[in-house]
Amino acid sequence: MSKIMKAAIIGGGVIGGGWAARFLLNGWDVVVSDPDPEVERKVGEVLANARRSLPALSDVSVPKEGRLSYAASIAEAVADADWIQESAPERLDIKHIILAEIQKHCRSDALIGSSTSGFKPSELQQGAARPEQIFVAHPFNPVYLLPVIELVGHAATLTRAAEVLEAIGMKPLIVRKEIDAHIADRFLEAVWREALWLVKDGIATTQEIDDVIRYGFGMRWAQMGLFETYRIAGGEAGMRHFIAQFGPCLSWPWTKLMDVPELTQELTDMIADQSDAQSGHHTIRELERIRDDNLVSIMRALKPRNYGTGELLNLHDARNKSPLPTDISAPLKTLERVIPVDWMDYNGHMNESRYGQVFSNAGDVVMGMVGADQAYIDGGLSYFTVANEIGYLSETHLGDVIHVRTQVLEARGKKLRMYHEMMRTSDGELLATCNQLLVHVSLKTRKSCEPEGEVLAKITALGEAQAKLPRPASMRDQG
Amino acid sequence: MSKIMKAAIIGGGVIGGGWAARFLLNGWDVVVSDPDPEVERKVGEVLANARRSLPALSDVSVPKEGRLSYAASIAEAVADADWIQESAPERLDIKHIILAEIQKHCRSDALIGSSTSGFKPSELQQGAARPEQIFVAHPFNPVYLLPVIELVGHAATLTRAAEVLEAIGMKPLIVRKEIDAHIADRFLEAVWREALWLVKDGIATTQEIDDVIRYGFGMRWAQMGLFETYRIAGGEAGMRHFIAQFGPCLSWPWTKLMDVPELTQELTDMIADQSDAQSGHHTIRELERIRDDNLVSIMRALKPRNYGTGELLNLHDARNKSPLPTDISAPLKTLERVIPVDWMDYNGHMNESRYGQVFSNAGDVVMGMVGADQAYIDGGLSYFTVANEIGYLSETHLGDVIHVRTQVLEARGKKLRMYHEMMRTSDGELLATCNQLLVHVSLKTRKSCEPEGEVLAKITALGEAQAKLPRPASMRDQG
Repeated sequence: MSKIMKAAIIGGGVIGGGWAARFLLNGWDVVVSDPDPEVERKVGEVLANARRSLPALSDVSVPKEGRLSYAASIAEAVADADWIQESAPERLDIKHIILAEIQKHCRSDALIGSSTSGFKPSELQQGAARPEQIFVAHPFNPVYLLPVIELVGHAATLTRAAEVLEAIGMKPLIVRKEIDAHIADRFLEAVWREALWLVKDGIATTQEIDDVIRYGFGMRWAQMGLFETYRIAGGEAGMRHFIAQFGPCLSWPWTKLMDVPELTQELTDMIADQSDAQSGHHTIRELERIRDDNLVSIMRALKPRNYGTGELLNLHDARNKSPLPTDISAPLKTLERVIPVDWMDYNGHMNESRYGQVFSNAGDVVMGMVGADQAYIDGGLSYFTVANEIGYLSETHLGDVIHVRTQVLEARGKKLRMYHEMMRTSDGELLATCNQLLVHVSLKTRKSCEPEGEVLAKITALGEAQAKLPRPASMRDQG
Repeated sequence: MSKIMKAAIIGGGVIGGGWAARFLLNGWDVVVSDPDPEVERKVGEVLANARRSLPALSDVSVPKEGRLSYAASIAEAVADADWIQESAPERLDIKHIILAEIQKHCRSDALIGSSTSGFKPSELQQGAARPEQIFVAHPFNPVYLLPVIELVGHAATLTRAAEVLEAIGMKPLIVRKEIDAHIADRFLEAVWREALWLVKDGIATTQEIDDVIRYGFGMRWAQMGLFETYRIAGGEAGMRHFIAQFGPCLSWPWTKLMDVPELTQELTDMIADQSDAQSGHHTIRELERIRDDNLVSIMRALKPRNYGTGELLNLHDARNKSPLPTDISAPLKTLERVIPVDWMDYNGHMNESRYGQVFSNAGDVVMGMVGADQAYIDGGLSYFTVANEIGYLSETHLGDVIHVRTQVLEARGKKLRMYHEMMRTSDGELLATCNQLLVHVSLKTRKSCEPEGEVLAKITALGEAQAKLPRPASMRDQG
């Protein structure tokens, strides 16, 4: 886009603020109109959240943020806007008044989306000057991160709206026929109603319901949704088989919500054909591997966040963790692990940056041995790496078990030098080496300083014991 | 565990095979019994999937895989098993026969779990020799990855079962009262029924339904579930406010499934109190940031998989990508980006390994400039990094915009040497440098070889043009 585009946000709550952030951080100018005297604070809070998360989704340069302003009236806000988004309270009479005021003052070619979760476009358009200009553009909270937008309305208008949304990184989904609550909220409402029954009947607490979702099918749905997941469950026999197999459950009391369509041959064929069109270019075996790689990637991504399955995996790692090396007079076995799928690159081997991660983790084990642990860091002291020299000797592949042998070369005062060798465990082949220089720092001043107390004593003893060892052969080879 | 534990898997389909893999890869011996002549192939296929994914969830060493064997009869399989898992077809008469046979031959202290998705433990236990020994242990496909297990049955038995499941990295969830289809499948069934209506009525295709889930609330549910997500939506006013606000929707036709509990003050209080107990130790603002960091991490994790939101983000990056540098007679601006949350470490700054990733990506831009792109790689040729020397000069923080300036130091024959400087864009501070040595390789032989055709011409021209530039100042400083 050469010209700067402008969005008018009518209603500056969590949803309106999310829309404002999505447009601004994609380079649009944004003007917000909301009679709430607190609107600037509220939009500011949403925007602060968006600024720390949305640009970080990108691995390339991001657009320059647009200009944000506030208008005293709807008339002023919409006058020259390309996109106008109404996110007023969910009352049809209020929406009618606002939409009329918008159409009185906006360009006739402006796009007017409504964030309504429940109303149909035909309801919104009642009495409108230009009905086909108004459509449903229903987002999901947080609007600045979740990409899907349900679009419902006049076909030609939606085509233009979809182009705009794609350009700002969203996923427009055109709903074929208008219906109360569109698509997603029908699922959310069905689950919500069932959940209310489970809590009311004392079957499960809110925590238990959340856990059964996020440690289970929630992760499936974060990447494949409902039907592609079930296609896999159907196996090589395919989707028709799956539906036939589970069709009878429809008459069982598996939910309090009992209105079900009749599973005719016609409906079975319709689902199976649509599923073939959607996923038929992959075999079930391929879909299984895609699913598994996605799940591993999601679960591993939650480990540094220590949340949900990430927290569970961290607890399991803590249980399986090898004890810290205790014999300081020999080279230290600092790490052993399997190479995961998220460490691979386009050359079909482990990306060079992940060697750095392996050696960083190996260095952390030495930190643990000398007591420079989380408590020490919380006390304001730590070691920072200042230089790494990594030699790549052989390729590392998915599923390889590797281990690291570490030798402390020098530990005097602020300075700590280590040498790491990474080996494939199955055949002992040396895959990479790392000469790592660390400096002890104060986390308050962010400047170097001497280690303190027990850490100083332990690191000095470790350095002295290891200095007596011969240099590793691979280091001598490098000269 | 000092003694090796033994699991008997009765029924070796996708679910039974998943249980077998979960136990085996956690160091248990496993014996499988299934009359299907294809059982070894089927379990083998599930196990192959599990071996390439489950161990890779761990960042520490993993247990030695247990021994897998097949038994000709249930009697033989269960004789000395610690855990027996029944995953037979979903017919109560078949399950009764199998459970009776199991109890006839197993230890009286063995744990007998059933994978049933629908039956209640009281139904499974009908006519059993030791009813309290039998319980529901309902898993989710793929069993070797998804951790949650719904446990329903006799309290003391479940306590022992939960301990075992935790030790093999799973998330046991004890269901308070038995109910048809336990908890999760009630939600799945409600969504399935609603989805059947939507397809039947021509509102959405299977693809559209999957997309609205996986680009939207599916990602919320992968980390927080239903109630914690809605707690945030309620804002500072809290869960009571949220329920009060959305309570009226319960009487609206937002789903075809219309049986709803009455939203009494008692039920509202019950939900709000449970939600306080679950999430009340975080403010809404904290929960928003946790949610956003989780979502960013999940979406970024799907980028290398190029699936779902990951594919969408890649498309958006391709749209926003800067053109490749064209002036080869000046240092090259190879990269500009924002530092994301998944690159941070426990010291509150960017982890040392991610500098390697930045420089790896910068090197890729030079690859693109000389035509050593995906098509060249698909043709069997590429560059591999053989050595990196990274100097860490200053700290890099969450949200920093950084860029990289690259100079080609040497490009002759197989050898390519580059020097990268990474700067904070806001103030130009030099954060890190990298001296990177690459070698051109054949992906068939995995040995070094000369570049070919246009790549050879372009890399040589680039090397000659850049050789005329003075060495970067930071390089001269390092001597």
